[in-house]
Amino acid sequence: MKTAKIRLYVEQPLGQGQTVPLDRDQAHYLFGVMRQGAGDPVLLFNGTDGEWRATVAEAGKRGGLLRAEEQTREQRDPPDLWLLFAPIKKARTDFIVEKAAEMGAARILPVQTDFTNSERIRQDRLQAHAIEAAEQCGGTFVPEVCALQKLDRLIAGWPAGRQLMFCDEALAGGSSALTGGLAKGAPWAILIGPEGGFSEAERTRLHALPFAHAIALGPRILRADTAAVAAMTLWQQALGDWA
Amino acid sequence: MKTAKIRLYVEQPLGQGQTVPLDRDQAHYLFGVMRQGAGDPVLLFNGTDGEWRATVAEAGKRGGLLRAEEQTREQRDPPDLWLLFAPIKKARTDFIVEKAAEMGAARILPVQTDFTNSERIRQDRLQAHAIEAAEQCGGTFVPEVCALQKLDRLIAGWPAGRQLMFCDEALAGGSSALTGGLAKGAPWAILIGPEGGFSEAERTRLHALPFAHAIALGPRILRADTAAVAAMTLWQQALGDWA
Repeated sequence: MKTAKIRLYVEQPLGQGQTVPLDRDQAHYLFGVMRQGAGDPVLLFNGTDGEWRATVAEAGKRGGLLRAEEQTREQRDPPDLWLLFAPIKKARTDFIVEKAAEMGAARILPVQTDFTNSERIRQDRLQAHAIEAAEQCGGTFVPEVCALQKLDRLIAGWPAGRQLMFCDEALAGGSSALTGGLAKGAPWAILIGPEGGFSEAERTRLHALPFAHAIALGPRILRADTAAVAAMTLWQQALGDWA
Repeated sequence: MKTAKIRLYVEQPLGQGQTVPLDRDQAHYLFGVMRQGAGDPVLLFNGTDGEWRATVAEAGKRGGLLRAEEQTREQRDPPDLWLLFAPIKKARTDFIVEKAAEMGAARILPVQTDFTNSERIRQDRLQAHAIEAAEQCGGTFVPEVCALQKLDRLIAGWPAGRQLMFCDEALAGGSSALTGGLAKGAPWAILIGPEGGFSEAERTRLHALPFAHAIALGPRILRADTAAVAAMTLWQQALGDWA
């Protein structure tokens, strides 16, 4: 039996014998770019039914049909971790979304802070990056990329019980440990500030929040995309699915 | 007194009253791109004398002169941590070098593994990325980027007393904790495999090394640049300068 090398995210339900029609883009990728044909194996996931081994039943230029044959991996959702970040230059924003999906964020929330330049984001493009990262990293879950929203509005309607870890450049060299009454399985969020950091008003507001935990990420000032990976590593190691 | 917003790495010694001549590229950047002029402040570091506040003494199209006035930060070297990685696609290789400098690696060693495609690297370009990252992150140290070498040859001449942490994709979901007799201040190296992982022969050889520590980086397969940041975070938190 040939080994499947391609993983595809699809939106259809997956189960034994389930057929999955391909749209034009998917068909182009699978048959045109990746040179797959009838009978070839592909791994599929849809974010809820785990990973399935499927084979190509029909291959065409404008579409095709896959048939799911056996489950190869159970559905595995990441911990209930949100990643909040202030969008920056295009390439680094793309990287943050990719990294968030790889590192196991459940939801990605771009936020506008006082020092954020970005007025808007391409939500559909960022969502496509999250899907691609999930296809690549072997996960069975794709984090949702939310619309850009103002940080203060998000904080004002903050859900009860969700903890917030924020990385404060002004603490550089301070402790990077999460401490104090931290229950596993509780909902969390990580907030990464923009290049240039938080404004004084934001820092004061954040430090005063009863659900907020300020940490440092070492003695050097990290770029936002580096900080996102480092902060998620600390969290996953202490409270998430890396333990 | 104007606040210096620009940090420059220079190769000259730095000290009270020391003058620093600028070459054509530095002059172009400082006076052409960044619009600085006589009397403007610049922060300088050279990797050994800490960070100094200097002012522009002469500004020209083809050169210029800075004068160091006061030390603004003491020299701070990173822990004795090497980052070994298998070069991948250009953009991601650049990112790994940038991340290694930000995260505080003392030396960056590109290595050829069984599954590495790269036959050569642009050592000078990668070194320039490391310098730029050091300028950006506020550090006073620039890690050296070594020439590409074969992993097995490097391992064959491995320095006595240096520990090696390697990230084994085959352990995905296993422990990400460094354990067992780990002294702070000891020399270490982190090895990040190429996309596609290590070969079976390499894995066997690595696991058998008495100075090697295999760890997992969570249940998902991380890209090499993500893995580099995550692994350095774990190490810095456990044994480095983040504690």
